[in-house]
Amino acid sequence: MNVTTVTAAEAAARLTGHNDILILTHRRPDGDTLGSAHALCRLLRQKGLRAFLHRNEDVTPRLAPLLEGMTPPEGFKPGFIVAADIASEDLFLASCAPYRGKVDLCIDHHPSNTGYAREVLLDGQAAATGELIWALAGILGITPDRGAMHALYIAVATDTGCFCFSNTTPLSHRIAAACIEAGVDVHAVNREFFERKSRARFQIERRLFDTLCFYGGDRVAASVLDRDFADSVGASGDDLDNLSTLIMQLDGVECAILLQELPQRGEYKVSLRTQKPLNASGICAVFGGGGHARAAGCMVRGDAEQCRDMLAREAVRQMESPC
Amino acid sequence: MNVTTVTAAEAAARLTGHNDILILTHRRPDGDTLGSAHALCRLLRQKGLRAFLHRNEDVTPRLAPLLEGMTPPEGFKPGFIVAADIASEDLFLASCAPYRGKVDLCIDHHPSNTGYAREVLLDGQAAATGELIWALAGILGITPDRGAMHALYIAVATDTGCFCFSNTTPLSHRIAAACIEAGVDVHAVNREFFERKSRARFQIERRLFDTLCFYGGDRVAASVLDRDFADSVGASGDDLDNLSTLIMQLDGVECAILLQELPQRGEYKVSLRTQKPLNASGICAVFGGGGHARAAGCMVRGDAEQCRDMLAREAVRQMESPC
Repeated sequence: MNVTTVTAAEAAARLTGHNDILILTHRRPDGDTLGSAHALCRLLRQKGLRAFLHRNEDVTPRLAPLLEGMTPPEGFKPGFIVAADIASEDLFLASCAPYRGKVDLCIDHHPSNTGYAREVLLDGQAAATGELIWALAGILGITPDRGAMHALYIAVATDTGCFCFSNTTPLSHRIAAACIEAGVDVHAVNREFFERKSRARFQIERRLFDTLCFYGGDRVAASVLDRDFADSVGASGDDLDNLSTLIMQLDGVECAILLQELPQRGEYKVSLRTQKPLNASGICAVFGGGGHARAAGCMVRGDAEQCRDMLAREAVRQMESPC
Repeated sequence: MNVTTVTAAEAAARLTGHNDILILTHRRPDGDTLGSAHALCRLLRQKGLRAFLHRNEDVTPRLAPLLEGMTPPEGFKPGFIVAADIASEDLFLASCAPYRGKVDLCIDHHPSNTGYAREVLLDGQAAATGELIWALAGILGITPDRGAMHALYIAVATDTGCFCFSNTTPLSHRIAAACIEAGVDVHAVNREFFERKSRARFQIERRLFDTLCFYGGDRVAASVLDRDFADSVGASGDDLDNLSTLIMQLDGVECAILLQELPQRGEYKVSLRTQKPLNASGICAVFGGGGHARAAGCMVRGDAEQCRDMLAREAVRQMESPC
């Protein structure tokens, strides 16, 4: 699809040239979509504009504060629609259906962005969409307030796995430094997202490793997390986050695959992580998904073990015959 | 004890006013002592001085490269002795015994530094001694070469738990940004220290949680790792690193205690981690140890379970009646 890209300066001009701005976030939201949207909303308000975040029905307790005081009043009619960190309309919430084909500006860092928006500010090298929001603040001449900095820290820290993943950039670190200097309690964020482990999460992690299967001479490792087990330990959405990266940590594993059963039994959300040079997005594309080179996802349906084997075999195939 | 502190500028002047500089690191070395020492040695060599690192018999494979090409030739007579990240002479290697009472300059960030050196460059607010070495480079007018940057990244990243711990400073992040820009493969370091998990490590972690005991209404959690088990899974020194932080991650835990049995059976190295306001150093001081406010250590000897209970009871006592 033809993507009409704009520069950060052009994006800033579009934003300040409008009012009643509505910002959309993606379904099953992460820290980057909500953190970026929250920070952008605050920046626009600091600029004197009316801006809101569309509600997000999928939000988990940990991220819910980013929506507080941000959703529009009854009867709000948006004059300009922005999508934050949404690579494709397939990632729209059901409640965002009215905005399909109507997004004015998408701000994103996914190279797989489908170009569904009228214009897109896209930087596939950025570690997080939050980095683009930071750049916009600079262009708009705004020093983000502490709330915006807090949101940007969440965006950047979560998308870089606390500055550990290979996507981490110098800017990721510089934003973090600025956040600490602005008085953001970054350790409270770190503890919540990277350190704290609920008892449910602890059980989930053990399950993950109990059911781990290896393929391709142990280079591919895959696990299935069934919904009944997750329910039995009282796992929340937050407890089920970022599990595939744990599998990826095992020595020798070059591709980690996690199938998480959705509340609709028999449907699985797949999270796939790879090491260079294996392309995660390329593997997921075979199953109608996409994402980044090192982290991608797709949806599959059917027998859990068959699905797991099918995904793992495709990973082994691409590992052995790179495109 | 009286600590004679010097400024970074004074420390830089002392260093460049001498030659044949020998840099010491502490026993059971971590990334900060070896990373800082390595970086300092390179800086001094960039300045045209002869400088070496004293060997470290305790070094683990992961950190061993920081000693390569750094140890002095046979018969080397040091003209100036520097201790990097060594809070006390109790942390000297046996091979450093000849240098007791003879350290000219100690560069350290431990508030518990005993002031054993003639002069000490001490910043208890610094996340890592590596931050002080970075500051010295600035004062010396040296752009650290890539090897020094690599070592500084190891120092700062390991002492901050990859920028996650509460000690992380804006400077920690700025050094990391500079390292990425200097071409350091920081992700290789992150993968090695924070992501990669050997099969032995994996087993050790499960053991840790299998033997976990709770005290004081689940606010204190303690575990014992016996040497026989560690040996049975073929655990290396690296596999046994930073285990107490894993216990600290459990929801509700405010004090994590890990007793690791030493090769001399019946002797335990204790690692203790706390959440604010509990003082880890204060608890360890009761048992002749010390360290930082949130991370400290000591040595105990005797029956594992009695030792564990004794430490945990002291933690509960200090939790309930803060000094």
